[in-house]
Amino acid sequence: MKKTKIVPAVSITGFTFSGISAGLKKSGQSDLALILSDRLAVVSGVFTTNNVKAAPVKLAMENIVSHKGRAIIINSGNANACTGKQGLKDAKDVIRETAEVLAVTPEHVYASSTGIIGRPLPKDKIINSLPELVNTLSPDGLGRTVDAIMTTDTFPKSIVKTIRLGSKTGTIAAIAKGAGMICPNMATMLCFIVTDISLTPAALDTALKEAVDSSFNMLSVDNDMSTNDTVMAMANGAIGNKTAGKNSPDFPKFKKALNEVTYSLAKMIAEDGEGATKYIEVKVKSARTEADARTAAKAVASSMLVKTAIYGKDPNWGRIMSAIGYSGAHINEEKTDIFINNIRLVHKGEGTGKETVIRKTLTNNAIVITIDLGIGTKGARALTCDLTEGYIEINAHYST
Amino acid sequence: MKKTKIVPAVSITGFTFSGISAGLKKSGQSDLALILSDRLAVVSGVFTTNNVKAAPVKLAMENIVSHKGRAIIINSGNANACTGKQGLKDAKDVIRETAEVLAVTPEHVYASSTGIIGRPLPKDKIINSLPELVNTLSPDGLGRTVDAIMTTDTFPKSIVKTIRLGSKTGTIAAIAKGAGMICPNMATMLCFIVTDISLTPAALDTALKEAVDSSFNMLSVDNDMSTNDTVMAMANGAIGNKTAGKNSPDFPKFKKALNEVTYSLAKMIAEDGEGATKYIEVKVKSARTEADARTAAKAVASSMLVKTAIYGKDPNWGRIMSAIGYSGAHINEEKTDIFINNIRLVHKGEGTGKETVIRKTLTNNAIVITIDLGIGTKGARALTCDLTEGYIEINAHYST
Repeated sequence: MKKTKIVPAVSITGFTFSGISAGLKKSGQSDLALILSDRLAVVSGVFTTNNVKAAPVKLAMENIVSHKGRAIIINSGNANACTGKQGLKDAKDVIRETAEVLAVTPEHVYASSTGIIGRPLPKDKIINSLPELVNTLSPDGLGRTVDAIMTTDTFPKSIVKTIRLGSKTGTIAAIAKGAGMICPNMATMLCFIVTDISLTPAALDTALKEAVDSSFNMLSVDNDMSTNDTVMAMANGAIGNKTAGKNSPDFPKFKKALNEVTYSLAKMIAEDGEGATKYIEVKVKSARTEADARTAAKAVASSMLVKTAIYGKDPNWGRIMSAIGYSGAHINEEKTDIFINNIRLVHKGEGTGKETVIRKTLTNNAIVITIDLGIGTKGARALTCDLTEGYIEINAHYST
Repeated sequence: MKKTKIVPAVSITGFTFSGISAGLKKSGQSDLALILSDRLAVVSGVFTTNNVKAAPVKLAMENIVSHKGRAIIINSGNANACTGKQGLKDAKDVIRETAEVLAVTPEHVYASSTGIIGRPLPKDKIINSLPELVNTLSPDGLGRTVDAIMTTDTFPKSIVKTIRLGSKTGTIAAIAKGAGMICPNMATMLCFIVTDISLTPAALDTALKEAVDSSFNMLSVDNDMSTNDTVMAMANGAIGNKTAGKNSPDFPKFKKALNEVTYSLAKMIAEDGEGATKYIEVKVKSARTEADARTAAKAVASSMLVKTAIYGKDPNWGRIMSAIGYSGAHINEEKTDIFINNIRLVHKGEGTGKETVIRKTLTNNAIVITIDLGIGTKGARALTCDLTEGYIEINAHYST
């Protein structure tokens, strides 16, 4: 689904952005990005749970305990993963040099990398590009930042949302890159969120964790998990609202907005899955527990058989039923209904014979599979895309 | 990997076999099989853990508690799954009619089905074919039996092994059908094992569970699990050996032979994975625990990124490292070595630069990935195949 998405030209009080080419990508495309807050911001992060973690991820996980930050420097073209002690030193060098050029303390700078793994980070190219990177920082530079973190993405992914907090208007801006594999080596999902709203560290942590749980953690492109996956949020409080804690009346508003931001980005990533022709939303309802709903939704969204069936415009409900069956979620086959694009395909575990009418709707680019488990009140949504020859092409024939 | 495998013409004392066309497959190919023991046999089974189970699986799981059996009737072309109460009645009717024609008690007859799910079993076709099915039973009919259980399999899968137990020679014969999806609907792995050796129910249970755990349970074609997966073993004791219990000196010999039988069949299923051009064996060694070794091996064997890389002849060790990293197994990146086709690609977590020489070996049809975790003494093997456009083709474009 090749698309052109317009990156909104917005400014978020106190933040500047840049993105340039540092020569890390052979193509000469933009590959180095910087996000800067003009004042100390509250920072939260969610990182890959892969036991093999990229060097910058290890450093960020240590540093973020302080919840303080000024800048994030992101490179594409090299993941700095599986690079041993040298990789850690390289990441530290990049952070130290960036801090020096920005005249901030190194503890307030975070690095993030995506690209080929197992190759030394060409840190000199990054360090030599720092003056240009810093000189081109601008309040409306978000579009250049998102360009520089793209890899196999076919369109830039960003979203901006404003919310009213009393007399103040706060803004949340976020950019992401896709979970499709980076040519030629590694899948990575990156997301950076900035807001000029003031929040306590605990509030930002809680909101971010919840938002990630119901968006990126429910997203499946190929079930592989990267060594570099990172979601980071910076809140610099530049609009001067009363700092929102977890008990603040503003907090639910912020959480809701942040959920919408991350869900929208997760949806864009699914739309842009490698080789994908269709975006698929899997909704599970009437589950006994939320955990059951999530488990069942994820199993359907991860099933290669379901994903190829949707690609083939085949309303193959047996594959959906089987996936919820092996998911481990509590189900009762005889109480289960399945809908595709809101047309009932299965009623109480048996087919309704609506294949022909449903098949016609499977020419759409957006497909909704709804599973009503009929045994409770809990629900969950998962996001995925279809599985096509294009995926194989990208990941098999694009050799290292 | 299209192959012709010869089905050995063997006889196993006391067993007869048949396979005919009952008209369940539109193609007119063979689709109904029968295995009969001339005396009451000890029976064990391992069945799908999918919460959605086919009707014959539900019945077999109830019946097998007795550990007694005379016959297994197997149809392809229809899975009798997601067929509700009618499906259960149909399966019972087939069992009752088969028992009547064979003049045995219905409790000693097991049914197994594979094929399209969600469609009523055409039981009349089966029942009307029973006289022919029974009349064509013969000691050398194993080849016709395996033909009748094939679906998208490109070659029949069977193996025969003999073992000496004191002065007696026992035989184990086994047939299987692949874990690739059945056109057009459902993945199912079926395996039926017969032996003329006498074993106690506990011994047969234990041996079968262990054999399945290290073979079919370590096999991944597409990570989907069928509603119909079944492995059944019948031991009729016709050679007259002293019945082997779990403490018998003959038991380790039987277990070893059974392990070889199931591993060989699992390997054939991997070789015949839908669209596969390569068979991949993943060996993990020096793991801290056997569970860790199994988990790591399965994660690599299930990774779509690893499977597409092997298809593309790309020695992409980052994908392997990442898969063991997210598997949940205890690993230490800096102690991990990775070999492809016995050539060391990663040493202590870093690349050895042997990509070019390894790439040349990736033109082989059989690929071995060895992962030395370097932190213990336990090992495990997993089996898979590469992931190709052929898989997509079979599963997307072959519509219901």
